[in-house]
Amino acid sequence: MHPLHHIPTAKEVEVTHQAIAPMIHRTPVLSCQSIDQLAQARLFFKCENFQKIGAFKMRGASSAALRLSDDEKARGLATHSSGNHAQAVALSAKTLGIPAHIVMPKNAPAIKKAATRGYGATIYDCENTLAARESTLEEVVAKTGATFIHPYNDYNVIAGQASCAKELIEDYEGLDAIIAPIGGGGLISGTALSARYFAPGLRVYGAEPEEVDDAYRSFKSGQLQHNTTINTIADGLRTNLGEKTFDIIQRELEDIYTVSETAIGHAMRLVWERMKIIIEPSCAVPLAAILEEPTRFEGQKVGVIITGGNVDLSSFFDRLL
Amino acid sequence: MHPLHHIPTAKEVEVTHQAIAPMIHRTPVLSCQSIDQLAQARLFFKCENFQKIGAFKMRGASSAALRLSDDEKARGLATHSSGNHAQAVALSAKTLGIPAHIVMPKNAPAIKKAATRGYGATIYDCENTLAARESTLEEVVAKTGATFIHPYNDYNVIAGQASCAKELIEDYEGLDAIIAPIGGGGLISGTALSARYFAPGLRVYGAEPEEVDDAYRSFKSGQLQHNTTINTIADGLRTNLGEKTFDIIQRELEDIYTVSETAIGHAMRLVWERMKIIIEPSCAVPLAAILEEPTRFEGQKVGVIITGGNVDLSSFFDRLL
Repeated sequence: MHPLHHIPTAKEVEVTHQAIAPMIHRTPVLSCQSIDQLAQARLFFKCENFQKIGAFKMRGASSAALRLSDDEKARGLATHSSGNHAQAVALSAKTLGIPAHIVMPKNAPAIKKAATRGYGATIYDCENTLAARESTLEEVVAKTGATFIHPYNDYNVIAGQASCAKELIEDYEGLDAIIAPIGGGGLISGTALSARYFAPGLRVYGAEPEEVDDAYRSFKSGQLQHNTTINTIADGLRTNLGEKTFDIIQRELEDIYTVSETAIGHAMRLVWERMKIIIEPSCAVPLAAILEEPTRFEGQKVGVIITGGNVDLSSFFDRLL
Repeated sequence: MHPLHHIPTAKEVEVTHQAIAPMIHRTPVLSCQSIDQLAQARLFFKCENFQKIGAFKMRGASSAALRLSDDEKARGLATHSSGNHAQAVALSAKTLGIPAHIVMPKNAPAIKKAATRGYGATIYDCENTLAARESTLEEVVAKTGATFIHPYNDYNVIAGQASCAKELIEDYEGLDAIIAPIGGGGLISGTALSARYFAPGLRVYGAEPEEVDDAYRSFKSGQLQHNTTINTIADGLRTNLGEKTFDIIQRELEDIYTVSETAIGHAMRLVWERMKIIIEPSCAVPLAAILEEPTRFEGQKVGVIITGGNVDLSSFFDRLL
């Protein structure tokens, strides 16, 4: 596979999916009668919380890593991340037998640092600002010659994320709509491409927290906007869109819904209690959008992408024992 | 199907499974590489947390309910329970379109009362003692003519619980061992029967909390013993064996392991974090027994029954939001 410098074509998404298949799980799709009743729709949850490293990020990172030349591979992968992308890059590197250099802010959860280190990556601590992350990364890249894998604003990553909706479409024909959360926009961009290529007519929706709604405002205004706060429990969605992901979103999405923090917490608890699966707050955002206004998808078959399950459970277990 | 007054035969387990199939889910079997590494064995988790009402109890309750005569059915089902069995009896009754009368102690979690009421059952509050539960149940049965469904010391119930291991054996040939927690002993009895009938040579183990170890002491002494404390987070395992379940346990089990509370909590957290599924503390007891001494099952294929996923999540969500 060669690196992509344009929006991935159907053929390129297919080739990517085939190439990354040995590095990812084909995740299951679950459904839940009692949530369907509340939603007045049939929901098909694509469970990326069961993906390797516990999140869909493994798809994009492995796609980008596999596209490097042998020379580039030998010098390794680099990124900055406080969360799932760090682990995805680290595990991709481990699987390919190459080095990974991960810049992590000092306030990143210890458990995520430990997991990233557990995959054999070298961790570089930095201050908790984006500027510090970027300058530390620059130094690391200059020193090691490693290739920076962007978490979302990269067509190679988007091609990998597209494999998630592609699997869902293959497993469940006849979906009316598909909905996914929007952080940096890599997942929703890949989702939109797979819908267009493999299920023409399938409508694609995004969902965001009310207060962290850069994609919503960008989509409605036609101009790339930035978040003004990071006030949400959906920690995976605090990122701003990139110009590549905004471009795809603007052209391919049917609509974007925003939801309150209370609605996110309620939807998350519903999934934990009724489906007995652990999902991150970010993944509850699309379900919150469905439940808030059930007429939106009434009587339809809707694919819902559960993006990950990496949650800090300390508060629960510290009390339990 | 007729009521069973003897240990269910292979044929009776098969007929039961067929009869209850429309009332239960055939639950999935999950595995997890990183837990396998810790266990030094290949573990196959039979996920009854995804069962209807969130626990295996639906299997036994539906088996008992289906065996009633039309007259008995018309008068309804009755039981006393603070937890999963209450919901299983209530849902079985609802599915059959008959009344359910459930005696619940005042201190039963509000969420479990609400769920039981949600299935249309009539709830009778009583004091928090076993004596109060039994006397209230007697009154209810006298008044309504409903049939008492015992949670475990009943061959009809045991025949239903046997369907769980039967499915696991059908889905994964070549298991070396199977391990399940022991509360009243209904599940382990059914598991042992299915192993003997459908996978001769498959060794069956039980697991219990160290301080609530009536089955362990009964098994080792050959005399039915009672619990002296209920000091365990594994709330599903605080019950004492019955004479019917002890009889089967004594004859069919390879061994019983006991584990500390710390080990139970550790194993439970491991499953939540690595497998992203919600399991009750009770289901963590077998895994704790495996992890405590990995040489016990080293290199083997082991079926592990995850009995349920009904956990009060308030402490987690109250903090989150």
